[in-house]
Amino acid sequence: MQRFIDLADFSRDEVQALVALAQRLETSPEPQALAGKVLGLLFMNPSLRTLASFQAGMAKLGGSSFVITPGQGTWQLETRRGVVMNGAAAEHIREGIPVLASYCDALGIRAFAEGTDLATDLAETRFNEMAKLVDKPLINLESAMNHPCQALADWKTLDETSVPRKAKFVLSWVSHPKALPLAVPAATAHMAALRGMEVVVLRPDGFALPDAIMQKVRAAAASAGGSLHETADRAEALDGATVIYAKEWGSTAKYGDEDADKELRRGLKDWCVRNDWFERTATDCRLMHCLPVRRNSAIADEVLDGPRSVVLRQAYNRLPAEMAVLYRLLRKPA
Amino acid sequence: MQRFIDLADFSRDEVQALVALAQRLETSPEPQALAGKVLGLLFMNPSLRTLASFQAGMAKLGGSSFVITPGQGTWQLETRRGVVMNGAAAEHIREGIPVLASYCDALGIRAFAEGTDLATDLAETRFNEMAKLVDKPLINLESAMNHPCQALADWKTLDETSVPRKAKFVLSWVSHPKALPLAVPAATAHMAALRGMEVVVLRPDGFALPDAIMQKVRAAAASAGGSLHETADRAEALDGATVIYAKEWGSTAKYGDEDADKELRRGLKDWCVRNDWFERTATDCRLMHCLPVRRNSAIADEVLDGPRSVVLRQAYNRLPAEMAVLYRLLRKPA
Amino acid sequence: MQRFIDLADFSRDEVQALVALAQRLETSPEPQALAGKVLGLLFMNPSLRTLASFQAGMAKLGGSSFVITPGQGTWQLETRRGVVMNGAAAEHIREGIPVLASYCDALGIRAFAEGTDLATDLAETRFNEMAKLVDKPLINLESAMNHPCQALADWKTLDETSVPRKAKFVLSWVSHPKALPLAVPAATAHMAALRGMEVVVLRPDGFALPDAIMQKVRAAAASAGGSLHETADRAEALDGATVIYAKEWGSTAKYGDEDADKELRRGLKDWCVRNDWFERTATDCRLMHCLPVRRNSAIADEVLDGPRSVVLRQAYNRLPAEMAVLYRLLRKPA
Repeated sequence: MQRFIDLADFSRDEVQALVALAQRLETSPEPQALAGKVLGLLFMNPSLRTLASFQAGMAKLGGSSFVITPGQGTWQLETRRGVVMNGAAAEHIREGIPVLASYCDALGIRAFAEGTDLATDLAETRFNEMAKLVDKPLINLESAMNHPCQALADWKTLDETSVPRKAKFVLSWVSHPKALPLAVPAATAHMAALRGMEVVVLRPDGFALPDAIMQKVRAAAASAGGSLHETADRAEALDGATVIYAKEWGSTAKYGDEDADKELRRGLKDWCVRNDWFERTATDCRLMHCLPVRRNSAIADEVLDGPRSVVLRQAYNRLPAEMAVLYRLLRKPA
Repeated sequence: MQRFIDLADFSRDEVQALVALAQRLETSPEPQALAGKVLGLLFMNPSLRTLASFQAGMAKLGGSSFVITPGQGTWQLETRRGVVMNGAAAEHIREGIPVLASYCDALGIRAFAEGTDLATDLAETRFNEMAKLVDKPLINLESAMNHPCQALADWKTLDETSVPRKAKFVLSWVSHPKALPLAVPAATAHMAALRGMEVVVLRPDGFALPDAIMQKVRAAAASAGGSLHETADRAEALDGATVIYAKEWGSTAKYGDEDADKELRRGLKDWCVRNDWFERTATDCRLMHCLPVRRNSAIADEVLDGPRSVVLRQAYNRLPAEMAVLYRLLRKPA
Repeated sequence: MQRFIDLADFSRDEVQALVALAQRLETSPEPQALAGKVLGLLFMNPSLRTLASFQAGMAKLGGSSFVITPGQGTWQLETRRGVVMNGAAAEHIREGIPVLASYCDALGIRAFAEGTDLATDLAETRFNEMAKLVDKPLINLESAMNHPCQALADWKTLDETSVPRKAKFVLSWVSHPKALPLAVPAATAHMAALRGMEVVVLRPDGFALPDAIMQKVRAAAASAGGSLHETADRAEALDGATVIYAKEWGSTAKYGDEDADKELRRGLKDWCVRNDWFERTATDCRLMHCLPVRRNSAIADEVLDGPRSVVLRQAYNRLPAEMAVLYRLLRKPA
């Protein structure tokens, strides 16, 4: 494995092997596996789980890491090509990225969507511009439309909570004060489809997932024997669900239009997952979320603090999932 | 040992054993003692000594650490319960804390006093709210009313500078541009009392230590054969003192009232430790302070740069003291 | 070796031995050489290469490091002596620096020029004030007038790209939106002179390097059989050059006068290295720069992305060069 950028780069079997490796590293630690290896972590956007779990994961495998956060002790990085750099950014990614890559054995990059032009973000313009400059093993720490580490951790969580392969998996839009990127909804729907599940995307009008994302999910579903359906009808969606995966995202109909997005979400305050969302689900229906979550805006306390929630298990699973990725990228063949 | 939150959780003998362990780790390093262990450090407030010494201490014992500073590359954390999260904080401690704990073998948390309601801060509401969410070994990196790592380092410093157990220990309020928390005065007075010293709290009117703190200190003094006295009379307090421990803190009579506090401290500029404070002390009287210190506001250059000051020794002792704590929390029994 | 503060503290042979050690550590890694050692890194100013490469370098030698960035999770540090500290800075370097030094086996400090008074900066007042407080091996991570880690990496780069010892080395001023410090031009000219090169400083009127710097460079040239010449005539300077080392710096004639500096540089936009700068150079003339560089302001894309540029090699060489420095400072004699 040379890069871990998109779960779609791997077959269902390959993903299952990664999950199995994550489980193995949990039960049979290899504290010297990556001795002497250095991981660079570049965060163009904030982080808590990714920041902590990758550092912890490298340490648990015997390696080290360093963190670079432009604008926080480091120069701001320019990403546009051909520009005359006379503004705030002192360094261009065309220097910054290859330099950082030259100091480490693997590089992780987080670069969120710019949130202005949907086509630009769907094309992963910003992340790909940086990825092209890296000649070392590369990890996507969340890009405009992807979050493969989260998806891998979620797959492991589904396995551990005995969610059947063919179960009904509802990815539901939930309320949030402002627009958030499409990375997790896109990665989550694809992951569930690739696992072979009955995927339902539940979202209000104006928040449909873009065609490009839906096509990719549909292809994964087809390959794995699953299905994909999109609806704004909550009752229909939740009926018989085994998983509700709550996630906030911005309007796709009004992408990049902050005012229009705000207007749309004004009437959607009841898209907050409460206990009554589970009235017609499967009895043991689980609540998932990638975190961070705004309590009582996206999900009510009663659900997050109740027995259905596996959000902490998901977050914990970032650690072994990422250790498996690091192991595959950096472990010298014996 | 499962937690290091308050020196009062330990007997005098147990504290002495910790100090002895700190000394042993200085003279007989154990560079592999915590190999493979990961320490998480969560700073809700700024730090220099704690930030550097805990990272260095883990490294010197063969372990690793990661640092999380909400608002600096990480989301801000909400601490209030039941709130609808539609403000600046993107994550609640009810998720953030257990997630961080799940990535490490021990977690350290710094959470200063909120400084608005005295009863709330005396109850350690903010720190305890977080501590309840941690199921791993936990270290108090300074809470509203406590700083046990500083207290342990100070105890070691007193031993090393041959300050007799029964000597007169004067904790003196000193001048500072604005109100500071009560954590260090509370922890220091308790530490000196538990060591069996003659503790005098010297402070101007309006800055008396709260009853709850004084009662705790008195109990420690009683258990260790020491004493506690509080006064606003500097001459009386300093007479025969073996240690002057200078510290800044906010008005307790006007707790949380910034203007009233400012008004009170306006006339107190002479509460700056100068050489003449030592005229009637013991000949070898020492000057202590936990740092950071504002020179020529709290303590004059002539004292900080003179032979009485042991402030650098105190700060250095944070390292071995914390290594002893980490060792006790994380070292597997052989 | 006790300190690495200025390349001028070492003879030509000693520098060559350091470069050789850097090369040896690249080809024959010693992943346990600094096991148990801790490097402290104090950044009073932003960094990317230094921040990442020192952490990576310590890790590759088996050691650890911690980073302190005043104002970013750490108190601001006061540097002035004798001042009454009633402003923003909560801690003085007279405490902060020795405390940090006491936690580590070696300390690196970055402290840029203050940029107001030339004599103060030439005297390295700010850095020296801190250096005096350090009783451990000390590394200059860039001071007002020096950047020895960059100079050492550049020397190695010159060797690797087979630039002859006696070749013509043109340090050229280039355009930048605002004044930058003299650290790199001073260190670079000195390094090239100590290597024995024909050094030409090319700069517009108002940007002549200060006498103190020129005298130091001249002395190095004399000792190594090289030469030093300064000119504002670009055609003359570039004629036959084997290296163009581009660098931005502030006006020395109007040092610290922001408006006058801005006025001076207004007419100097054509001081941007383009392909036509190489028309009369040696055929294989190289382009060097320490980074970060503002593209199309200081150097055009066509040059940075062309075959003459060795800027990424220079940046990479920071890693082995710094590993050699760390090895010399911290490696216990066998």
